[in-house]
Amino acid sequence: MNTMIRTDLQQELQHKIDSKTKPLGALGRLEEVALQVGLIQGSVHPQIHHPHIVVFAADHGIAATGLVNPYPQAVTAQMVLNFLAGGAAINVFCRQQGIGLTVVDAGVNVDFPADLVSTGFIAAKVGYGTRNYLEGDAMTAAEVQQAMAAGSRIVEDLGREGCNCIGFGEMGIGNTSAASLIMSFITGIPVEQCAGRGTGVNDEQLEKKITTLRQVSRLHLPAIAASPDTWTILQHVGGFEIAMMTGAYLKAAELNMIILVDGFITTAALLLARQINQGILSHCIFSHNSGEQGHEKMLQYLDARPLLNLGMRLGEGTGAAMAFPLVQSAVNFLQDMASFESAGVSTSGQ
Amino acid sequence: MNTMIRTDLQQELQHKIDSKTKPLGALGRLEEVALQVGLIQGSVHPQIHHPHIVVFAADHGIAATGLVNPYPQAVTAQMVLNFLAGGAAINVFCRQQGIGLTVVDAGVNVDFPADLVSTGFIAAKVGYGTRNYLEGDAMTAAEVQQAMAAGSRIVEDLGREGCNCIGFGEMGIGNTSAASLIMSFITGIPVEQCAGRGTGVNDEQLEKKITTLRQVSRLHLPAIAASPDTWTILQHVGGFEIAMMTGAYLKAAELNMIILVDGFITTAALLLARQINQGILSHCIFSHNSGEQGHEKMLQYLDARPLLNLGMRLGEGTGAAMAFPLVQSAVNFLQDMASFESAGVSTSGQ
Repeated sequence: MNTMIRTDLQQELQHKIDSKTKPLGALGRLEEVALQVGLIQGSVHPQIHHPHIVVFAADHGIAATGLVNPYPQAVTAQMVLNFLAGGAAINVFCRQQGIGLTVVDAGVNVDFPADLVSTGFIAAKVGYGTRNYLEGDAMTAAEVQQAMAAGSRIVEDLGREGCNCIGFGEMGIGNTSAASLIMSFITGIPVEQCAGRGTGVNDEQLEKKITTLRQVSRLHLPAIAASPDTWTILQHVGGFEIAMMTGAYLKAAELNMIILVDGFITTAALLLARQINQGILSHCIFSHNSGEQGHEKMLQYLDARPLLNLGMRLGEGTGAAMAFPLVQSAVNFLQDMASFESAGVSTSGQ
Repeated sequence: MNTMIRTDLQQELQHKIDSKTKPLGALGRLEEVALQVGLIQGSVHPQIHHPHIVVFAADHGIAATGLVNPYPQAVTAQMVLNFLAGGAAINVFCRQQGIGLTVVDAGVNVDFPADLVSTGFIAAKVGYGTRNYLEGDAMTAAEVQQAMAAGSRIVEDLGREGCNCIGFGEMGIGNTSAASLIMSFITGIPVEQCAGRGTGVNDEQLEKKITTLRQVSRLHLPAIAASPDTWTILQHVGGFEIAMMTGAYLKAAELNMIILVDGFITTAALLLARQINQGILSHCIFSHNSGEQGHEKMLQYLDARPLLNLGMRLGEGTGAAMAFPLVQSAVNFLQDMASFESAGVSTSGQ
């Protein structure tokens, strides 16, 4: 699409927004979202079809040490079973909003029973959790490629089924640590300012977490400084679910989807995807400002203004699910509201 | 309900919230809403039934002068017809969210055709707009009573039909001026700090609006200072839709409804209702921080933290409609999420 066409479309969208029966600008951020969605879809008649959230789950070698996480590693697998039974927060919110939900085993440290493989579960295990990055690389280069390709394929399949609006979520005990390291390596912000309380570490545990992450950061800095690309960062300090999300983001942008960005860990994956496709941000609607302290700094780094600020810090894609009705409202007002002309309403004298 | 029972219920609700499969507090503001809704309904199993928004429309004598409003007075009636045709923003959002919608002629300055009286429209006209408060009282004491009683009755009828969650909206060219005056008289904040751009006055118009409101304020101050009660304020500077909302708020609290508070004008009506029932705030969930500048000061005065901050300033109850799915999510997670015990998920070691 050339610049001239884009400019015309933008003007046409703005004119349509301004002609609706409301004072100019009175729908605030919803008007910005309507404009963005129209630009993504290249249409003054944008529509949302088959909105979907994909939750990627994986384990992290570091979690087995207990140095960074208050919950035992086993909780990752337990929560996957909770997702599949429909009992987690993301299940409740997706049911409420009519959002499709897929749960992906990206690398959980258990074998799930074969009979779990039903609609809504994808077995794409890259390994039984990453290796402990205190002792070496989290994964191999081949594993990075495998995970990113799997994420890409999952989004491609959803696109083929008609989905044009997607959000990602994650589950992985210890994954705020990987996200903090990724954030630090990409933004240059010291890792102690990136790390937060995650699922709820206390002061003592937070100190231990930060000490550990500083150590990890020092260990991997030389290799990453030499080659600070997405693949190298993922290999050294990433997670299978984060690598898979990175591939998923890239495919979603390629397929021109609306991307609802969730919280801290999913935004870390976005930082990785953006290193490969700078243009990806034009597809992204930032759902919420997570309660995890590093998230706000990430959003500032990306110059992103999220729609919600509810102090949520649950992951699973729950922020994306909560923001979805706002995005739907933006599309709906653009599509369904009357114009001053069609409704016979007088405009202001200005 | 005595204090002991309330405390027990509060503990029981908090225990239920904390036992859900999520880190403690990880659903942020949604957890506060779940607790509040449980307390309103006196139950650890709260439910929302027949959510409804009532839009009260009326005209204001001052609007005919053109001193405070860029849109002509005729727009009030035109927008009522737009509501009834389903083309306004509030129609779009209520359809999306499954929220019932009723439009009330509280005092619009036209006669609507009799065949409009269908489901969703209530003819409760108190007069053909208020009188111009630059020249005397906006309404009579009898009109205040009539309007408040009508609002009360409308909510009572909705309650009888099963509604337990209600929001109010308004339409009335010139009504940000009445709301600014009410706010100023109740909070003691000078009227020039209460008035804002409403539907979008420019700098010159804003100056004229403020000059006019100062004049109105001086004219009515002696009478209101002598008797600063809700009825007197409404009689001097109110509007029929604002008086009707005041009565509606009071009945909604009496019927133990969840009340979704919208923007600037509806919060002014809440200030009036609160002078009669101090306890009403426990029923109120503040939807959003409106783009109308005085709203934030009102919210501070009430120590209220709204759920959304999207720069919306449309009225019609649109903020309440946008916040509704968040409130529904709060109820849904409390009702439908699995507990650590039921899902077999390990808790943190803390």
